[in-house]
Amino acid sequence: EKRKFQVSLSPIVSFVQKNKDSIKKIIHCIKVGSALVLVSLVYFVDPLCKEVGDDNAMWAIMTVVVIFEFHAGATLGKGFYRGIGTVLGGGLGCLAAILGEQVGGIGNPFIVGVSLFIFGGAATYARLIPNIKKRYDYGVMIFILTFNLVSVSGLREENVMEIARERLMMIVMGFAICICTTLFFFPAWASDEIHNSMVSRFEDLASSIEGCVEEFFRLAGDKENQSVHPIASFRNCISVLNSKAKDESLVNFAKWEPWHGKFGLFHPWEKYQKIGEVLREVAAIILSLKGSLNSSKEPLQALRESIKEPCEAASSSLAWTLRELGESIKKMRRCQSEPFIVPRLKLARQGLSQVMSPFKLGKHDTAEGLAIACFVF
Amino acid sequence: EKRKFQVSLSPIVSFVQKNKDSIKKIIHCIKVGSALVLVSLVYFVDPLCKEVGDDNAMWAIMTVVVIFEFHAGATLGKGFYRGIGTVLGGGLGCLAAILGEQVGGIGNPFIVGVSLFIFGGAATYARLIPNIKKRYDYGVMIFILTFNLVSVSGLREENVMEIARERLMMIVMGFAICICTTLFFFPAWASDEIHNSMVSRFEDLASSIEGCVEEFFRLAGDKENQSVHPIASFRNCISVLNSKAKDESLVNFAKWEPWHGKFGLFHPWEKYQKIGEVLREVAAIILSLKGSLNSSKEPLQALRESIKEPCEAASSSLAWTLRELGESIKKMRRCQSEPFIVPRLKLARQGLSQVMSPFKLGKHDTAEGLAIACFVF
Repeated sequence: EKRKFQVSLSPIVSFVQKNKDSIKKIIHCIKVGSALVLVSLVYFVDPLCKEVGDDNAMWAIMTVVVIFEFHAGATLGKGFYRGIGTVLGGGLGCLAAILGEQVGGIGNPFIVGVSLFIFGGAATYARLIPNIKKRYDYGVMIFILTFNLVSVSGLREENVMEIARERLMMIVMGFAICICTTLFFFPAWASDEIHNSMVSRFEDLASSIEGCVEEFFRLAGDKENQSVHPIASFRNCISVLNSKAKDESLVNFAKWEPWHGKFGLFHPWEKYQKIGEVLREVAAIILSLKGSLNSSKEPLQALRESIKEPCEAASSSLAWTLRELGESIKKMRRCQSEPFIVPRLKLARQGLSQVMSPFKLGKHDTAEGLAIACFVF
Repeated sequence: EKRKFQVSLSPIVSFVQKNKDSIKKIIHCIKVGSALVLVSLVYFVDPLCKEVGDDNAMWAIMTVVVIFEFHAGATLGKGFYRGIGTVLGGGLGCLAAILGEQVGGIGNPFIVGVSLFIFGGAATYARLIPNIKKRYDYGVMIFILTFNLVSVSGLREENVMEIARERLMMIVMGFAICICTTLFFFPAWASDEIHNSMVSRFEDLASSIEGCVEEFFRLAGDKENQSVHPIASFRNCISVLNSKAKDESLVNFAKWEPWHGKFGLFHPWEKYQKIGEVLREVAAIILSLKGSLNSSKEPLQALRESIKEPCEAASSSLAWTLRELGESIKKMRRCQSEPFIVPRLKLARQGLSQVMSPFKLGKHDTAEGLAIACFVF
């Protein structure tokens, strides 16, 4: 009986395994949909709505739509900055509105206008500074928006403080709904994603090194199939090269994520960025080998044959090193084969320097240096 | 008299020349400040405000704060997508609200909730598709927001159409203010920025090739100063390598920008992306030379001396080629020295193959191939 059940389930399980990514996406969509319905309950349930005022309830909806991001960390961070921006902007806006009221008459709009110009301009300048833009852009934007709305509505309505309080309450409510849905149902952690992408990047680079060397010597063997492989092997490298922006944002999100799974609260996320940097350099080196594949049209057959063996040995030990390092990062333990790596690479290097091919030597040496640099982790 | 004026002005002019970037930023801040004040005039001027309703005027402010970006193209694009998103979301929201009203009773919130869930989920899924995320993310977000707000307020208020119409009017007003301030006062064109960054990237790569070859042979000469230069020469390369994300967004913005200056309406912006791609590969190749700088600890003095001359010739002709290409892009004319480049590079290559240094040969050949690829432009 049980076995039958398992059989009927197995295609589903394998389907889930295969389409992990799209299932994650669909779960995210369902989560967003439910959060939207939840927040709209504020409208559905009458007494609650009357209390907070009709057009303030809008702020809860807006918060959910704007804050809800794919990664849990991104949602938390955005919500936090939104809160800070709202409180700061609302506070300063109230001050400006009250100051304007005290002056009264024509001075009121004048003061509000001037303060708008000054604060708006200053905050906009802050948004243009790269470091602030990277991390606080959203918070600063919300600051400008809230400051503007609060100070200006002070011109027409008496109860500025009341409005500010209610809106803040609605934003907190929207944020709470977001938190509940992101964190408690199938959370999509940015930390998991960056961790896994690092591991798979090691694997990718290892296989491109192998593919590249294989290509180099296969080319010497049979010329006719040469136009099949070359590009495919380098696509991984190019995607590693272009990974900087994505890494940065993922690390920023991961910092916001609470303790979960195998990651502690103070996991060294900056190290991931450093490893990413090193891997990009390795990718650049591998990519430059493409040149040697395309260029050497004249088949220096004899020369190639002579360097074939040590090159293959070197490439395989390099690939092995990269895989070993990737594995150790995956399991988050100190690389166990550490004592074996360095001698093995040294051996490979020796083999290379014996055949005295400055081209190969130059390249492999660096990769070795970089691999050793990875050890710091 | 006139001369005196010129003298008193000259330090200002030189200051402006030096701090072009920060002055652009300050102008942007002033523009944002004035746009905010302008849009707040809606509140200041009473009759206008009464007509559109108090809490709808808020939408104009929100539009200005959210849409106003540094580059004119970004503002235009965001405004356009915001408009589309609002119209679509508002239209569908109205439909959902009307449908719910027709059913009436408990069916009303049910229908609205279900439609929210479906449309919200579908739109969120669209936001996760990379191509849509890259270009339409903002528009889709606005669609969700508007759809939610309109359909939900249909539950409580009768005049949904009226509200939608007024809000749309306010958004258009906010957009109009943004357009006026971005386009008519010192516009910051994304097209100029990407054009100039391409040109300067050619220059950067050329100087890093030169610096790198110089370093290689200086190292052979006097060892003691070796730790001074190496890193500085590669920083440019690394920044070129990491330029993909920025390029993409600038090209996206540039597409939105109307005819201005030397750029026509159908300027081939995609070509900039392609050139950027090629330049990134060249940068990767140059970066890989770093390996050869660090690695060759054993001073193969004799070997180096023998390849010094052709290498230097090759590097200088490569750098010249890159500068020439950069210049031709800057002036937007077909490269005039086209007939000279290929022979010169071929000569350099011949010089290299004579000394039979497979390492150098491999590298320079590719760069040459890439340089020729640049010709398509």
